[in-house]
Amino acid sequence: MPDARQYFDLPSPFEMKRGGALVGARLAYETWGTLDPARDNAIVILTGLSPSAHAASNSADPTPGWWEDMLGPGKPIDTNRWFVICVNTLGSCKGSTGPASIDPATGKPYRLGFPELTLDDAANAAHALVRSLGIERLACLLGNSMGGMCALGYLVQHPGSARTHISISTAPQAQPFAIAIRSLQREAIRLDPHWNNGDYDDSHYPETGMSIARKLGVITYRSAMEWEGRFARIRLDAEARPDDDPFGVEFQVESYLAGHARRFVRSFDPNCYLYLSRASDWFDVAECAGPGARHGDAAATLANIQVEQALVIGVSTDILFPLSQQQEIATGLRAGGARVDFVPLDSPQGHDAFLVDIPRFGAAIGTFLATV
Amino acid sequence: MPDARQYFDLPSPFEMKRGGALVGARLAYETWGTLDPARDNAIVILTGLSPSAHAASNSADPTPGWWEDMLGPGKPIDTNRWFVICVNTLGSCKGSTGPASIDPATGKPYRLGFPELTLDDAANAAHALVRSLGIERLACLLGNSMGGMCALGYLVQHPGSARTHISISTAPQAQPFAIAIRSLQREAIRLDPHWNNGDYDDSHYPETGMSIARKLGVITYRSAMEWEGRFARIRLDAEARPDDDPFGVEFQVESYLAGHARRFVRSFDPNCYLYLSRASDWFDVAECAGPGARHGDAAATLANIQVEQALVIGVSTDILFPLSQQQEIATGLRAGGARVDFVPLDSPQGHDAFLVDIPRFGAAIGTFLATV
Repeated sequence: MPDARQYFDLPSPFEMKRGGALVGARLAYETWGTLDPARDNAIVILTGLSPSAHAASNSADPTPGWWEDMLGPGKPIDTNRWFVICVNTLGSCKGSTGPASIDPATGKPYRLGFPELTLDDAANAAHALVRSLGIERLACLLGNSMGGMCALGYLVQHPGSARTHISISTAPQAQPFAIAIRSLQREAIRLDPHWNNGDYDDSHYPETGMSIARKLGVITYRSAMEWEGRFARIRLDAEARPDDDPFGVEFQVESYLAGHARRFVRSFDPNCYLYLSRASDWFDVAECAGPGARHGDAAATLANIQVEQALVIGVSTDILFPLSQQQEIATGLRAGGARVDFVPLDSPQGHDAFLVDIPRFGAAIGTFLATV
Repeated sequence: MPDARQYFDLPSPFEMKRGGALVGARLAYETWGTLDPARDNAIVILTGLSPSAHAASNSADPTPGWWEDMLGPGKPIDTNRWFVICVNTLGSCKGSTGPASIDPATGKPYRLGFPELTLDDAANAAHALVRSLGIERLACLLGNSMGGMCALGYLVQHPGSARTHISISTAPQAQPFAIAIRSLQREAIRLDPHWNNGDYDDSHYPETGMSIARKLGVITYRSAMEWEGRFARIRLDAEARPDDDPFGVEFQVESYLAGHARRFVRSFDPNCYLYLSRASDWFDVAECAGPGARHGDAAATLANIQVEQALVIGVSTDILFPLSQQQEIATGLRAGGARVDFVPLDSPQGHDAFLVDIPRFGAAIGTFLATV
C-alpha cells in the first residue's frame, strides 16, 4: 500500500498539559510542494478528529486524499506556490502516537494508560514539528473542525508563529450541544461490553458502540436540509431489506448511515476516538493561555492572537459548530488587529460542507491565499 | 397511587391498517370539565410518544400532569368551558393496549408479536373512543409532536370529525433527519443484549440502550441556544464526579442528560418505544387517505382536510420538527379553506417548548380557543 507519511520524533519526554509525559512519541505528517529557501511559504493543515495526514495525493501516495480537490498544483491551496504540511493529530491512530500506540515503558499499547490528552498538546506537538523543519513562522495556519480548535490553541500558545490564519467550521470553546453529542458518542462506545475498559482486540472489538458513535456523528455532520433533498422518504428496494428483522433498515437514509458506520468502524481506534473526543469537549481557547489569562474570557484571548490576516469560514446549516461561533472567532481576531474576512456560507451540507462543497470553500480559500 | 384513568374497550377485533387485528384491546384516557348536553364542547388531546393521558391534575388524581399549566379551570385550555379528553396512544404502555400488554391468545405479553402499528391505527382508536362518548364532532382536535401526526391522520381518515384543529410542533410526514435520529434510537435499544429480541424482563432489561435512546431524544428535543445559556461550560463539583471513570460525567449538561435518562428508562416499555418510534417514521399524511390518494402528495391531502379553523404552532429552534414543516401544514389547511393562524415562535427550548414555554404557547392556544 502506498504511504507518503513522514515521521517526526517529538522531544522526549514530551510534557503533557494535564500531567504526564510521552517518551519516544512521534507525529506522522505529509507534505506537498517545496519549501522556499527563505522558509516563508509553509501552510500547516490541522485536521478534524478522524482524518489522516493524507489530505491529497502526492507522488509517494497517488490515492486521493480527504481534501483532494482543495490541495494540489493549481488548486485553491496551490502547491506550486505553497509548501503544505498536513499533520496527523497527536492522539490519533493514523501514524502519530496515541492510545493505540505501544507504550515503551510496558511494550504494550497504552490504551487508557495514555496520559490525559488536550488539544493544546496536539497543537504543541504540531508546533514542534514545524520548528524542526526550520520554519520560524508559518505563512498560514489552517484548521478545520477539531483542527480549528487545535489551531487556536497553537496561535495562543505560540505568539507570532503564523502570519495568517484560516479557521473553518470550528469553535473557540466547546459548547453544551456539541459536548452532549460527543458525550453520548463516548458513552455508546464505553457501554459496548467489547470495549472492556479499553482492553479490546480485533476479535473482541466494540463494533456496536463505534457504529452508534459514527452514525450519530454523521447525523450531526450533515444537515436536515441536505437530506430532505437527497433522501426524502425514499425506501430501499424490498430485496435490499432484511426479511427477518422487523426493525431493520427500510429508508435510504438508514442505509446511508449504515454504510458510513461500516466504513469507519474498523478503521479508527476506539480509545483514540475517546481521547480526541474528550479533548474536544475540554477545549476552551481561554484556557490555552495558561494561568495568566482571565478565566473563561474567550473573546479577550482571541483578541490577544497576533496574526496579520485571517479568513474565518462557517456554514449556516452546521449544527455542531454553529455560525455564531465562527462569528465569535472573527470578531475576536479582528479585535486583535487582524484583517479578517468572515465568510458565512449557505452550503446545505452542514458541518461537513468543507469536505464536499469545494466550489464555495475553494473559492473563499483561494481568494484569501492570493492576498497573502 | 391515585389514578384518574378511564378505559374504553375498542371494537373487537380492532383491524390494524398494515394487517392483523387486536382482540380485547382498550384505550386509557382521562377527562376534565363537563360535556355539554349538545356534546359540542369536546377537545381531544393526542400526545407525543411518551406521555400518559394524565395531562393535568384532576379530582381523581391530584398529581400534576405533563401539561399542568395549560389545562384546567381558567387556564389556556379552560376546563370551565371545555370538556377535555386526553388519550394514551394505542401502542403505549400507560394503560392503553400495546406490545407490553397481555395477548389474550397466548396469555403472555405481545412483545414483537404485536401487529405492526401505524399512527393511523392510533388515530382510528382515538376516533372510536370519541364516538363511544356520543360525540359526533369535536370542537377541537389538538395534537402535539407525534400526537400532531396522529391528529392529521384522524382528520384525513374521518372527514368532518372536528370543527377546529390545533397542530403543534409536528410533521405532515417524517423527514430523513428525524428518521435518522429515531432509527439510531431504535438501534441503540435493539443492540443492547438485554433487549433480547424483545424478550426482556425487569431483571434483564435493556437499560443501556434505553438510556442512549433517551439521551439522544433529549438532545434533539431541546436546543443548542437554550443549553448555551443554561449550561455553558459549567462543570460538576469534584465530589459529584466519579473518581474511577476517566470518561465519566464532568459537565453539567452531561449530568442533566443522565438525570433525564434515569427518570425515563424504567418508566417506558422498550418494545412500546420501538413500535411507536417506527410508526412515527412510517407516518405520511398522504398515505392516510388510502389507495385513492395521489401517492406522496402531502399538500393535496392536507388541502382535503375539512376544518373551519386551525392554529398551527411551531418553534424556530426545533430541529426535529422544523418550522418549515409547520408552515407546510398551515399552507395545506389554508388551501382547504380553513381560517388558519400560523404562529411561529422563537422559544429557545426547541421541540420541547410546547411543554415548558407555557407563556407563549398558552397565549396562542388561549387566544385561538376564545374565537372557536
